[in-house]
Amino acid sequence: MITHTVFFKLKHPKGSDAEKVFIEKATALKAIPTVKNMKAVKEVGKKNNFDWGLTMQFANQEDYDTYNNHPDHVNFVENVWKKEVVEFMEIDYIEN
Amino acid sequence: MITHTVFFKLKHPKGSDAEKVFIEKATALKAIPTVKNMKAVKEVGKKNNFDWGLTMQFANQEDYDTYNNHPDHVNFVENVWKKEVVEFMEIDYIEN
Repeated sequence: MITHTVFFKLKHPKGSDAEKVFIEKATALKAIPTVKNMKAVKEVGKKNNFDWGLTMQFANQEDYDTYNNHPDHVNFVENVWKKEVVEFMEIDYIEN
Repeated sequence: MITHTVFFKLKHPKGSDAEKVFIEKATALKAIPTVKNMKAVKEVGKKNNFDWGLTMQFANQEDYDTYNNHPDHVNFVENVWKKEVVEFMEIDYIEN
């Protein structure tokens, strides 16, 4: 099982409608069949620059690739993510 | 529920005994009673500088504080973490 996480900062004001719509569009990607346990998370620590995160799991690399290459994901990255995310970091991990 | 994560890079060579001992000492902190679901994780992505992570959950901030202030945690930070970790980032979050 691979856990894929991405933490990010939006250009939208906190609590704005635009922020809410972004999170709705992001979490709609859970409809891609290989995505498991997708969650939008809010940062509560103050030890980095990010406000939001998305966490999800894939059974294996093939399932992860299916998500990455899915037209809905590609469209989201090009037309939403790249326009609305100011800064981000991806962390992918497996249990030791 | 608060998820506390920290991703880090050790000064030890990958696959070394020193690395293994560090991870054993870190995960021994799961004995602190308020810690839930502690896991050591290995990074599989190449998109940041970290090799390892620790993830755990706390029912609330009070339980988190109990962990932070516990003598075993304080001792670990002072005598192991600060001496063996080269770089790290903490990310704490709640489900949206």
